[in-house]
Amino acid sequence: MSAARFDILGIGNAIVDVLSKTEDDFLVAEGLHKGSMNLIDAERAEYLYSKMGPAIEASGGSAGNTIFGIASLGGHPAYFGKVADDQLGHIFTHDMRSLGAHFESTPLTGSAPTARSMILISPDGERTMNTYLGACVELGEDDIDETIVADSGITYMEGYLWDKEGAKNAFRKAARVAHEAGRQVSITLSDSFCVDRFRDEFLELIKSGQVDIVFANEPEIKSLYQTADRVTAINEIRKDAKLAAITLGEEGSLAVTKDETHHVKAHTIDELVDTTGAGDLYASGFLFGLANEMDLEKCALLGGYAAAEVIQHIGPRPAINLKQGAEQVGLL
Amino acid sequence: MSAARFDILGIGNAIVDVLSKTEDDFLVAEGLHKGSMNLIDAERAEYLYSKMGPAIEASGGSAGNTIFGIASLGGHPAYFGKVADDQLGHIFTHDMRSLGAHFESTPLTGSAPTARSMILISPDGERTMNTYLGACVELGEDDIDETIVADSGITYMEGYLWDKEGAKNAFRKAARVAHEAGRQVSITLSDSFCVDRFRDEFLELIKSGQVDIVFANEPEIKSLYQTADRVTAINEIRKDAKLAAITLGEEGSLAVTKDETHHVKAHTIDELVDTTGAGDLYASGFLFGLANEMDLEKCALLGGYAAAEVIQHIGPRPAINLKQGAEQVGLL
Repeated sequence: MSAARFDILGIGNAIVDVLSKTEDDFLVAEGLHKGSMNLIDAERAEYLYSKMGPAIEASGGSAGNTIFGIASLGGHPAYFGKVADDQLGHIFTHDMRSLGAHFESTPLTGSAPTARSMILISPDGERTMNTYLGACVELGEDDIDETIVADSGITYMEGYLWDKEGAKNAFRKAARVAHEAGRQVSITLSDSFCVDRFRDEFLELIKSGQVDIVFANEPEIKSLYQTADRVTAINEIRKDAKLAAITLGEEGSLAVTKDETHHVKAHTIDELVDTTGAGDLYASGFLFGLANEMDLEKCALLGGYAAAEVIQHIGPRPAINLKQGAEQVGLL
Repeated sequence: MSAARFDILGIGNAIVDVLSKTEDDFLVAEGLHKGSMNLIDAERAEYLYSKMGPAIEASGGSAGNTIFGIASLGGHPAYFGKVADDQLGHIFTHDMRSLGAHFESTPLTGSAPTARSMILISPDGERTMNTYLGACVELGEDDIDETIVADSGITYMEGYLWDKEGAKNAFRKAARVAHEAGRQVSITLSDSFCVDRFRDEFLELIKSGQVDIVFANEPEIKSLYQTADRVTAINEIRKDAKLAAITLGEEGSLAVTKDETHHVKAHTIDELVDTTGAGDLYASGFLFGLANEMDLEKCALLGGYAAAEVIQHIGPRPAINLKQGAEQVGLL
């Protein structure tokens, strides 16, 4: 296998986040399950926006955040995702390219707008997401540039893609092309409700070896194996995946293989402000570590570091240069 | 004079800010004068955006920030400003209305986009602004709803409006209508370079009594009277304006009338992050105080409090509810 032009290729829903602080009463009044990601249509998006408070806008999208984080760590990532040719699409494109990530997906013209996710941040830092997919729903097999997939060390994809048939096919195609080129394939399970919707398909992807590396948090991995017991879930994923990275919130994270389990403590923080992007940035650090052939413990530490940075401010992407930051704490 | 439906009416350039951290080297390389506000055309905007780093977007505009701050303090403000009927315009409109400010200016359709200001934040917190006015340039006399002007206690306008003939006429019309209704008129000098461009006209506005209340920082008031001496400048404005509020950065601020000078110390802060919005939010606090018939010292203290809040985070508008915050520190 030749050296890869790109460390990591991310494929996901290209979304601009609309972030607003809220009280939990608002979530209750609007029937929102705290901590969840809800797919909403244009009408509901309009309604919720009219009800919510003042916001700031920031490029987001799960895999988009991960890829941005890898660029911030000094990596060389690429990204596939569908924006529209509109103002929010230009913002997303600018931000993705601004640190050097390769992003050349053709924007959608003349129909649905760029996706936005209205993210309501509770006083305790938990976020509740309401996503209108807009242009994202047009992501399909044609957007999978095979040359780039073949030239990326690891192709990393969102479980969220499974919500749309076209994106699902794009996912399968990318996985096939990556493996044919001798590369690796990774998935994040994205959200426990997402796992609920697609459990059998996710299990099939992992068990069949179409996916090598699995990222999940505790609710997601428990949902995948329909168990309330963490250890049971971990022993199941150990059998099914070559490598799994499981985030455990304040308890840190686990890197799990057939024979090994590495537990790494959470990076200390001063104040939890907004959990948006926590899992995404954990994946940035972990994948950057893998791309640079670090040991699994180091990968998990880097993931924990990047996640700790992003939860200490509003917004889904790092506010500092992660390479410099990681160097300062001795992780790079 | 009857009670006013609106405490304060703000008129200004309706702008969405694009905020990005930068190193001072970048300002030098791009020929930007640190701390200034530069008007740029669409081509230059495109160029600078392609060069600058990742950003977040937040509704801004000088008077827009002031009006938002007044709403956050629990006031009842209104705003006139021109956005386009596009995504950034919808964002601006949402944010302005989200705390209850009255904003019904007709958006522009089919030509220039909503204005944006690329704000480069230096490591020391100073901001350098690069503003593409877009739809703002269409603000004109027709946008001045006389009923609302007549029903607002104080009409507050940006010196920035003077850069365009239509907005200048809108300003003059609003001042006339306000005075005919027995209301007061206020201006912020906006920027020392802006004062340089329009010194004679600003002096004429103030000396003729078309403006009652002047907001300025030290460089602006010195520029207005073409003096390097603060005391000289203050004694000049004392002769010309009924009331002037002069911000002095770390030294606090002054409220100056014919016979009185009140010096108020700066509100203490933990860390200066981004000066964007400092003067605008000072005006929020001061004007809110005036509208509620507080004494001048209290007005200046409230202004200093609101300014202190906004410079401790990225973005031009308060991140907290200013009413609750001011109550907690005993100012309300």
